[in-house]
Amino acid sequence: MQRVLNIDTPKHLGEKVKVCGWVNSRRDHGKIAFLDLRDRSGILQVVCASDLAKEIKDEYVLEIEGEVKKRPANMINPKIETGEVELDGQNIKILAKAENLPFDIRDLRVSLPVLLDYRPLTLRNEKIRAIFKLQEGIICTFRDKLKDLGFTEFQAPTIVPSNAEGGAEVFHIDYYDYDAYLAQSPQLYKQIMLGGFERVFSVNHVFRAEPSVTTRHISEYISLDAEMCFIDSWEDLMDTCEILIRSMFASLKENYQKELKILQAVLPELGPKIPRLKMREAQEIIFQRTKRDNRKEPDLEPEDEKEICKFAKEKYGSELIFITHYPTKKRPFYTYADPDDPDYTLSFDLLCRGLEIVTGGRRINEYDKLIKNIKKWGNEPKNFSYYLQTFQYGMPPEGGFALGTERMVKQILNLENIREASLFPRDMERIDRRLSILQPKKKTNLKIAKSKKKL
Amino acid sequence: MQRVLNIDTPKHLGEKVKVCGWVNSRRDHGKIAFLDLRDRSGILQVVCASDLAKEIKDEYVLEIEGEVKKRPANMINPKIETGEVELDGQNIKILAKAENLPFDIRDLRVSLPVLLDYRPLTLRNEKIRAIFKLQEGIICTFRDKLKDLGFTEFQAPTIVPSNAEGGAEVFHIDYYDYDAYLAQSPQLYKQIMLGGFERVFSVNHVFRAEPSVTTRHISEYISLDAEMCFIDSWEDLMDTCEILIRSMFASLKENYQKELKILQAVLPELGPKIPRLKMREAQEIIFQRTKRDNRKEPDLEPEDEKEICKFAKEKYGSELIFITHYPTKKRPFYTYADPDDPDYTLSFDLLCRGLEIVTGGRRINEYDKLIKNIKKWGNEPKNFSYYLQTFQYGMPPEGGFALGTERMVKQILNLENIREASLFPRDMERIDRRLSILQPKKKTNLKIAKSKKKL
Repeated sequence: MQRVLNIDTPKHLGEKVKVCGWVNSRRDHGKIAFLDLRDRSGILQVVCASDLAKEIKDEYVLEIEGEVKKRPANMINPKIETGEVELDGQNIKILAKAENLPFDIRDLRVSLPVLLDYRPLTLRNEKIRAIFKLQEGIICTFRDKLKDLGFTEFQAPTIVPSNAEGGAEVFHIDYYDYDAYLAQSPQLYKQIMLGGFERVFSVNHVFRAEPSVTTRHISEYISLDAEMCFIDSWEDLMDTCEILIRSMFASLKENYQKELKILQAVLPELGPKIPRLKMREAQEIIFQRTKRDNRKEPDLEPEDEKEICKFAKEKYGSELIFITHYPTKKRPFYTYADPDDPDYTLSFDLLCRGLEIVTGGRRINEYDKLIKNIKKWGNEPKNFSYYLQTFQYGMPPEGGFALGTERMVKQILNLENIREASLFPRDMERIDRRLSILQPKKKTNLKIAKSKKKL
Repeated sequence: MQRVLNIDTPKHLGEKVKVCGWVNSRRDHGKIAFLDLRDRSGILQVVCASDLAKEIKDEYVLEIEGEVKKRPANMINPKIETGEVELDGQNIKILAKAENLPFDIRDLRVSLPVLLDYRPLTLRNEKIRAIFKLQEGIICTFRDKLKDLGFTEFQAPTIVPSNAEGGAEVFHIDYYDYDAYLAQSPQLYKQIMLGGFERVFSVNHVFRAEPSVTTRHISEYISLDAEMCFIDSWEDLMDTCEILIRSMFASLKENYQKELKILQAVLPELGPKIPRLKMREAQEIIFQRTKRDNRKEPDLEPEDEKEICKFAKEKYGSELIFITHYPTKKRPFYTYADPDDPDYTLSFDLLCRGLEIVTGGRRINEYDKLIKNIKKWGNEPKNFSYYLQTFQYGMPPEGGFALGTERMVKQILNLENIREASLFPRDMERIDRRLSILQPKKKTNLKIAKSKKKL
């Protein structure tokens, strides 16, 4: 007999079907047990009079044949999609047993470290599953919408030859007889790709050796990157970013109602247009509102990002705001300086509910200017000769942006910690389990790749 | 004026339009120059009488306004999609200049090392672009088809805490105060995911520190991974794999005619059903056909893989063949041994035109059996406690497979070297450029991540 998903059982009313799943919970009523059977589609109530029922515990995996029956009117459960039916469980087969659970995984009241220590178990919880279905939806819409707009998806490399962009912290790899690094972004590669494809995007795992633990940083995160050339103005980039964000929210609203409901999430308001403010203007507004004077700072502080989002919501009905014109010396060498005010760049961040979720801007497309800037940023053009081919052989005005997936999920769901929005978060203390438990501190003589390459 | 893509110009016959692109080539006829303008959609001929035309060289980037005109009948070019029209170029603006090219990028007759040294330039060639559009198509169909089949996409981590699976070569990372490694596959994570999602897939960059240079291996490649539980038989996995392969080929045939034509590629024949042979049976057939006796070997040699594919094509009209039942001791600890013959596993490889492109099989889903096997494979269960939760708390029969994207592209297009099917191939000699040129041999004292973490 072909398996039927729980969610499809109401279509088989009065028929005998086979279902499979995990025991989400059980309730005993005398000789009868009620099992909530969970599969990927949802929950189904199974009525079970068999002796075997006594043996069955939470998270046992069952295959059950039985008849789909209407529930008595007073037993209908409107909270679940199969709430009008139940299965009269006849043949029950235990496909796998489960040990006693360390805690209740339906009503997950555990600390964040425990949630993560037990991720293989806690991801069976309905809310946790909903978070990662939303993540899937965001990435999927990113791809679909950009394809509609004529973008090509490409695969940017993870192993890179040098810490080319400077700035943030980088992980070192023992690469055969050489040194290599984990990519901090696909930036140089997406620019390279423009010469062949004009508009490209990529879904990337990128890496930051963050030397501290915060609620907004993880060491490996998913960066959604887009880059396009033949722009008429650098504001085209914000326009494209806004189109994308609106598509994502619309898709979540349309296709992820169930998950949003489970998570009691309300999507951020966008208003008619996401407002755009220069960083210096934002600082002035923040000063006026709070008397906190950060008007000379080269960046917005976390508190400032929260305040300017409050302002945007009050004034423009938007929980998102573009902040533009960050100082030139705080941005990478390829960022385009504003011709009217070269101390500031044609760059932007997109803040959502008080946190930066996108960063982007126009890039320098003139070969000579790039050479000059590489030197100015303290590097040597010969180290960039591969990348520089892109501009040496003709590149029109271009730019792009990168969206932090986990941050977006965190902000949409108002999660407290970015680790809740990452399936397998890595930070300086954890890779799956806490590193202090998992392994001794660094033994510099044990380097597998190094020893193996001598074979 | 809004830009029009080259391919859309025939719709604007008699109208004035603006186009943008790179000069793919130029031909001079007295006072008139004919420019082939290339954009992401294709080539458009531009007739140019302006003085500026003299200045314009290959790969210059132009913005041109002009009228779309019908070509004289004897000038029609049936080889390009815009071959019935040409643009009478009036206002020409140079958006970017290009230096003299080091070689002809239209007719790309360069060695593989030069092709790769100049990747940012060579990807402007029409054939090279077509290769990576096909790659995009394969990855896209992989996702779309599996979503149709009820699979959830997830993001598997790249940084892993140990060389858990053993076997192939692994890259070491300096991870804060600890050791970490680059994932060789998302295997353990996709199994973990089953508990929440039943059917999952992921598109992964995975890493092998291959200590030699071959035409079939690169150090970073794109692995398309799927895993599913509630299987009735391990053959369900091959069935799903075959459905997927057929979908991919059908999609390429339907949506990538242009690219296949450019590359003069003929998709592999599939026949009515992809044949399935046990490894020992295959070895016997190879022995009968060639008198080469590898019947006691634990794996197929490259020559054997070619021969058995020849056999499959002759006998079954299929250029693909599943080889099953590889020896237990040659497979990882989680592979399911055949209950009828425990020296062999319920595993398979899919060969295409003489090369393995997929590997898969049933996994052990019983907790006790896994513990026993981890010990037997010389490891300690406590190192796997995170992963083992999946099975400790109930997991039905399951399995999956992984497809090597670059290998599939290589085999479909009959490319000589896998590096041609990778945008930015990494191997022991190259990361973008040849490492021997790029950097000195390993300086063990210069480890950025290590020094930074002390900040």
